[in-house]
Amino acid sequence: MSEALVAGLELGGTKCLALLGRGQVICDRIVVPTTSPADTLGQLETQLRLWFQHEPFAAIGIGSFGPLALDRTRPDYGFITNTPKPGWADTEVAGRFGAAFGVPVGFETDVTAAALAEHRWGAAQGMTSSVYLTIGTGIGGGAIVNGRPLRGFLHPEMGHVRVRREAGDSFSGICPFHGDCLEGLASGPAIAARSGRRAQDIPSDDPVWRPVAGALAEIVAMLILTLSPERIAIGGGVGCGQPHLLSLIRARVATMLADYVADMDINALERIIDTPCLADQAGPLGTLALALAAIEETAGAG
Amino acid sequence: MSEALVAGLELGGTKCLALLGRGQVICDRIVVPTTSPADTLGQLETQLRLWFQHEPFAAIGIGSFGPLALDRTRPDYGFITNTPKPGWADTEVAGRFGAAFGVPVGFETDVTAAALAEHRWGAAQGMTSSVYLTIGTGIGGGAIVNGRPLRGFLHPEMGHVRVRREAGDSFSGICPFHGDCLEGLASGPAIAARSGRRAQDIPSDDPVWRPVAGALAEIVAMLILTLSPERIAIGGGVGCGQPHLLSLIRARVATMLADYVADMDINALERIIDTPCLADQAGPLGTLALALAAIEETAGAG
Repeated sequence: MSEALVAGLELGGTKCLALLGRGQVICDRIVVPTTSPADTLGQLETQLRLWFQHEPFAAIGIGSFGPLALDRTRPDYGFITNTPKPGWADTEVAGRFGAAFGVPVGFETDVTAAALAEHRWGAAQGMTSSVYLTIGTGIGGGAIVNGRPLRGFLHPEMGHVRVRREAGDSFSGICPFHGDCLEGLASGPAIAARSGRRAQDIPSDDPVWRPVAGALAEIVAMLILTLSPERIAIGGGVGCGQPHLLSLIRARVATMLADYVADMDINALERIIDTPCLADQAGPLGTLALALAAIEETAGAG
Repeated sequence: MSEALVAGLELGGTKCLALLGRGQVICDRIVVPTTSPADTLGQLETQLRLWFQHEPFAAIGIGSFGPLALDRTRPDYGFITNTPKPGWADTEVAGRFGAAFGVPVGFETDVTAAALAEHRWGAAQGMTSSVYLTIGTGIGGGAIVNGRPLRGFLHPEMGHVRVRREAGDSFSGICPFHGDCLEGLASGPAIAARSGRRAQDIPSDDPVWRPVAGALAEIVAMLILTLSPERIAIGGGVGCGQPHLLSLIRARVATMLADYVADMDINALERIIDTPCLADQAGPLGTLALALAAIEETAGAG
């Protein structure tokens, strides 16, 4: 059976994508800058309308920056909630597009969408627990557990976990909320603040990578001991652009676990901790995966 | 529809339980000491045989100390694997009882069983993500996500997460693997090593509770930011016996999150972080819940 034609929206802090696709094949896409909700969502809706008039799509998947309200029993379901991004707090997203096109809508964080793409089409296929971490302008994580996105009271906010500090690392961190949480210590802007250079310009043997890898190894070890994932894909600009960083992280995780977890040796860690096999397409493809999941959920509930 | 008659086994480090029950009503139970696998499992099987001959039960649920092999595609599925407990490494458990009685067997860690009981019959009913933490001789955690136990490469080993140290806390920790992991800092034996007294004999205003609550708050905040649970039940001898500890933990978690998670204020934390509503019966009832889940899984796959 060929998969349904679906639409996807990826809402980011500086730009948004609209996609049309069938399975993991993207048929068309446009990019619009993220300005105000009225302008940006309006442009995206106009594009979806053009596609829909040509050939109706069966569902829409939306992966968005957060925080998001994901509890379907609450009146604010489908909203971007208390984001500090000017103009975007309390913006209805899912309901708007569902009402405009009369199709099922899947709505999750951008990183959960990427995790779902890796689970549906990437290296995490068939896994009962898998994680997608992005290390870039911010740090975020999503997980797919027992076939569905992991969420509950809210959704994961893995970038803001407090981690142990590398011995001797006195960098105070740049997170406006928490100072030296993971994002404050190891995001792209944190690396830039530590070194005065952009991550992509820093050689792999520079000492700045040591505390960065240390902080990232803390979250990876912690995820292994709590979510027991079969795979942790580390993407984003920093994650994908620095292959040596993954080696540093794996070695540190192996030391931290100290052979406690059976079979979790460095060889296993090389399989578990890797870049996303969908590379920078995990996020966009994730929106199509969300749309397909919304169709399946509607069918299952019907 | 009345629920099926099922059997449960709870395998602990010093004693084991066998239970017979219907729904959450326990009809009969026995306790046997944990000696050798041949003796202990033999006694449990003899008891199950007596019950079975009187009225056949439809499934068996087993909650066990770990580590356990839970991947059904592997030849060691259903074994207790590399436990340091003398005589118990590489012991087949699930397959043995399944073969003896010809019924479906559910097999998970003891803490996952307790988490499942809270999800089926306790305060976590209907939740998409919920956690059970036990603080006692050791520290362990289980989670139910999207209706099923959380596991993947292995199963959670939450007690061995490394947490930030309380400022000024110089206790070196007692974990033989990791020193100052969570279990090394905040388990019953760690509290005893810190203070020279048993946890239950220490007054609630004793300064020893401060670093213990601090370490536990670290894992709770971390779980909130990764698993986004709607509930974290904290049980076990230390967890259930020290109500003031929960207040300390909640206050510390609120400070750590720094209002980052929407709606996660101290009132929400009072609802989320609590003792298990099944109290010390969460573990035993969890084995019955595992048996019922095994029946449902068999029916779903058939």
